[in-house]
Amino acid sequence: MDSIVKFELTKELLERFSEALRDRDDAFIQSRLEGINPADISTILEEFSAEECKYVFDLLPVETDSEILNEMDEDVIEEFLVHFSSREIAQYVEFMDSDDAADILYQMPPKQREDVISALENEERAQNILDLLQYEEDVAGGIMAKELVKAYEKWTVKECIDEIRKQAENVEKIYSVYVVNDQEKLLGKVDLKKIVLSNDSVKVADIFDDDLVSVETYLQDVEVANLMQKYDFDAVPVVNARGKLVGRITIDDIVDVITETADEERQLMTGVSSDVEEDDTVWAISKARLPWLIIGMAGGVLGAQFMGLFREDIILIPAVAFFIPLITATGGNVGIQSSSIVVQTLASSNVFIGTMGKRLIKVFFVAVVNGAILSLMVFGLIILINKDQSLAMTVSFALFSVVLLASFMGTVTPLILNRLGVNPALASGPFITTTNDLLGLAVYFSVAHVLYNL
Amino acid sequence: MDSIVKFELTKELLERFSEALRDRDDAFIQSRLEGINPADISTILEEFSAEECKYVFDLLPVETDSEILNEMDEDVIEEFLVHFSSREIAQYVEFMDSDDAADILYQMPPKQREDVISALENEERAQNILDLLQYEEDVAGGIMAKELVKAYEKWTVKECIDEIRKQAENVEKIYSVYVVNDQEKLLGKVDLKKIVLSNDSVKVADIFDDDLVSVETYLQDVEVANLMQKYDFDAVPVVNARGKLVGRITIDDIVDVITETADEERQLMTGVSSDVEEDDTVWAISKARLPWLIIGMAGGVLGAQFMGLFREDIILIPAVAFFIPLITATGGNVGIQSSSIVVQTLASSNVFIGTMGKRLIKVFFVAVVNGAILSLMVFGLIILINKDQSLAMTVSFALFSVVLLASFMGTVTPLILNRLGVNPALASGPFITTTNDLLGLAVYFSVAHVLYNL
Repeated sequence: MDSIVKFELTKELLERFSEALRDRDDAFIQSRLEGINPADISTILEEFSAEECKYVFDLLPVETDSEILNEMDEDVIEEFLVHFSSREIAQYVEFMDSDDAADILYQMPPKQREDVISALENEERAQNILDLLQYEEDVAGGIMAKELVKAYEKWTVKECIDEIRKQAENVEKIYSVYVVNDQEKLLGKVDLKKIVLSNDSVKVADIFDDDLVSVETYLQDVEVANLMQKYDFDAVPVVNARGKLVGRITIDDIVDVITETADEERQLMTGVSSDVEEDDTVWAISKARLPWLIIGMAGGVLGAQFMGLFREDIILIPAVAFFIPLITATGGNVGIQSSSIVVQTLASSNVFIGTMGKRLIKVFFVAVVNGAILSLMVFGLIILINKDQSLAMTVSFALFSVVLLASFMGTVTPLILNRLGVNPALASGPFITTTNDLLGLAVYFSVAHVLYNL
Repeated sequence: MDSIVKFELTKELLERFSEALRDRDDAFIQSRLEGINPADISTILEEFSAEECKYVFDLLPVETDSEILNEMDEDVIEEFLVHFSSREIAQYVEFMDSDDAADILYQMPPKQREDVISALENEERAQNILDLLQYEEDVAGGIMAKELVKAYEKWTVKECIDEIRKQAENVEKIYSVYVVNDQEKLLGKVDLKKIVLSNDSVKVADIFDDDLVSVETYLQDVEVANLMQKYDFDAVPVVNARGKLVGRITIDDIVDVITETADEERQLMTGVSSDVEEDDTVWAISKARLPWLIIGMAGGVLGAQFMGLFREDIILIPAVAFFIPLITATGGNVGIQSSSIVVQTLASSNVFIGTMGKRLIKVFFVAVVNGAILSLMVFGLIILINKDQSLAMTVSFALFSVVLLASFMGTVTPLILNRLGVNPALASGPFITTTNDLLGLAVYFSVAHVLYNL
C-alpha cells in the first residue's frame, strides 16, 4: 500500500495514451487503466474527444464505466452522452446510486431520458430515478439518494443485520439504519456502531435514537449544507410533507454543494458569467466575459458624457482631472469591501440580530473612520506634492464623501438583492464598481465645481 | 420528533435570556437550554459577554460546556478563555476529541497551555494532545484526531468488536477499523458494514481491504481536502514517515477546511484583510479595511502625478479626460476576470496540461476577441454621441491595448504569486486593480499624445 496513492496526470502518460488510442492498442489501454481509481480515469479522459472516450469505455467493464461517468465534469457529460445509445446509458445507470443517475439524466433531452429509463432492467431503480427527477436540482429532494437501510420499529437487531446484508450492494455507505413505523413514517435511527455492539435479539424499538433531525424534500440545498455543517452530520434523512421517509443526503453530496456555491459566488464577484474553465474554447471564454465588460463600458461612456458637463472646469483646472482615478478606484474598493462583509454575514448566519437601522449606523461609523484617515492622508500628500490648497480640499472632501456613499451602496445593494431572491454576491462584482464609478464622478465634480467657484 | 428542528434565535428569546441573566434566574436558564443542541447554545452565547457566558457555563453540565466550547467561533474563544482557570479548561478538554482540544489550546498563551495539559487527569489524552500540538495547524497532522479504532492483523472479528466497545465512548464516529501489524504499520481497513456482516470467528487478516489511501502528517490541509473530495472519502488515516498509523481525519474537519479556504479567498479578493465580521467593533472593521484602501489611494496619487505630465494635452482636448474612468474600469474588470479564471484552475486541478506558452497564446486570443468587440462598440458610440473621430480612435485604440495588457497581467500575476508560495487569490483583489489603473493610464495618455500630435 502506498502511503499516498496520489495519481499524477503527466505529459508522458497523455502522449503514450494518445498513441495507444491512435494505434488501437487495446492491451495497453486496458492494462494501464487497471487498478486506477475511476475518478482518475475520468481526469485522463477529459483530455480526449468524446469519440475517443467512447472507445475506451467499450474496453472497460460496465461497472467501471459507470463510476467514471459519475466522476466526469458536468460540462462534458452532455456532449459526451450523444455518442451512446439509450440502451448503453441504461447499462451504466444500472450501477449508479439513484441520485447520481438522476444527475446524469438531468443533462439529457426529455425524449432520450425516457428511453433510458424504460431500458432499465431493474424496475425498482427505474421507479427511484423517476421519483427523483420530479424535484428541482437544488432542493433536498433533488440531491438525495433513494438508497438507504430502513428498519421497522418492531424488528430485532438480527432482522436489521439481515436487511443490511440485503442492501449491502446497493447502499455503499451506511452510517445509520433509519427506523420507521408501519406507515413508513420516520421515527429515528440506530447508528451502525450501536448495531455492532447490540445483541441480536434486542428490539429496535428499545435502542433507536428518536432525537433525529430530518429535512423535508423542498429545503434548499444550501440550507441542507448549513444544517449538516453546523451539526456535523454524516447523513440526514429526507421526509415528505407527511413525514414519510423518502431518501437520505450524505455528506459527500454536501461537500459538492459547498464547493459549487463558492465557485458560483466567485464567478459573480469577478464578472465571469456562466461556468467557464481555462480549457474551454476561446469563444466560450470570451462570451462568458463580455456581458460585464459591456456593462462596464457602457457605464464608462455614460460617465464621459456626464463629465462633458464640466468641460470648462477641466480646462480651467486640469489638475482636477488628474485625481479622477483616485476617486473612482477608492469608491470601487470601498464598495466591494462593504458588500463582501454583508455577503459573508448573509451566508453564515441563520438570523440577523439587530435591526437594519443599527447596522447602517455602524457602517456609517466605519466609513467615517476610513474616510477621515484616507482624506487626511490625501490632503497631506497633495499639499506636499502639488502645493495646491484648493485642490487638496476638493479631492479630500470628495474622497470622504465617496467613501461614505460607496459604503452605503455596498451595504444596501446586497441586502436588497437578497430580499429580491437574487444571489447577493452579485453586488460584490462589476455591478458595484460601475455604479460607484458613476456616483463617485458625480460627487467629485459637484464638489469641485462648488469649491472652486466659491 | 420535528421534521426539521431548526433552531431560531429570535429577538424575544434574546431579550428574555438577557433578563434571566440579569436577575440570576438560574432555573429559567437551565430549563430553557435543556435539550437544545450545543451548536445552538453557542449561537446564543455569542451574543453575550464573556462574563455572562461564564455564568451560563457554570450552570450547565461540564460535558455540554465542552461541546459548546467546541462550536464557538475561533475569534471569540481567545477572549472568552481568559475568564476560566486552567483547571476549569482542563475539565472541558477531558470531554473533547484530541483534535478539537488541540484547536482550543492553540488559542492560548504557551504558559496557560502547559497548565491545562498538566491539569488533565487522563494521561493518554494529555499525551495525544501534546502529540498534536507539535504539528502546524494547516497540515494533516494538525487537523487529524488521535481517536480511532485500530485492530491488529492477527485479531478476529470478535476482538475487533470488543475493541469497538472499548473505544465507543472516545470515538464518536466510526467508519472503519484500521488494521495494523505488530509494528503499528498501517496495512488496510475493514469497513464497519463488513464487520456487521462477518462471522465473529473470521480473521481480520482475511477480510481487510488493503487498497487504502492514507496521507502523511505533513500534507497540506487543502490537499487533504482535495483528495477526500475527489475520492468521496468519509475519513482518511494519517501515517508518519515510517508508515505508522498516528491519527485520522474525518470529513467534517474537511468541510471546515473547504469553507475556511473559500472565506480566505474571498477576503483576499475583496481586500478585507484578516478575519472580520459584521459584529466586530467599528475600529476592528476599519483597521481590516484600511491597508488596501491606502495602497489604492497611493496608486491614485501616483497616477495623478503621472497625468500631470500630460497637463497640456488635457487643456487642449479636455474630452480625453472624460474617458479616463472607462479605461481604468475596463482594465480593472478584465484583470480581475483573467486572474479569477487562473485562480480557479490552480485550485481545482492537480497538474497543468499544456505549457505556459500555450496558455498565454490562448489568453492573448481571448483578449483580442474581447478587446476588438469592446473597441468597436466604443468607437461607434463616440462617433454617434461625441462626433469626434480622433477621440473615437484614441479611446478605442487605448481600450484595445488596455484589454490586452490587463489580460496578460491578470494571467501572469497569480501564476507568479503561486510559484512564490503566496495565495494566488491575492491577485484577484485590489492589487490587480491598482496596477491596472496605472498601466491603463500610461497606455491611454501615450496613445492620446501620439495620435493627437500626428
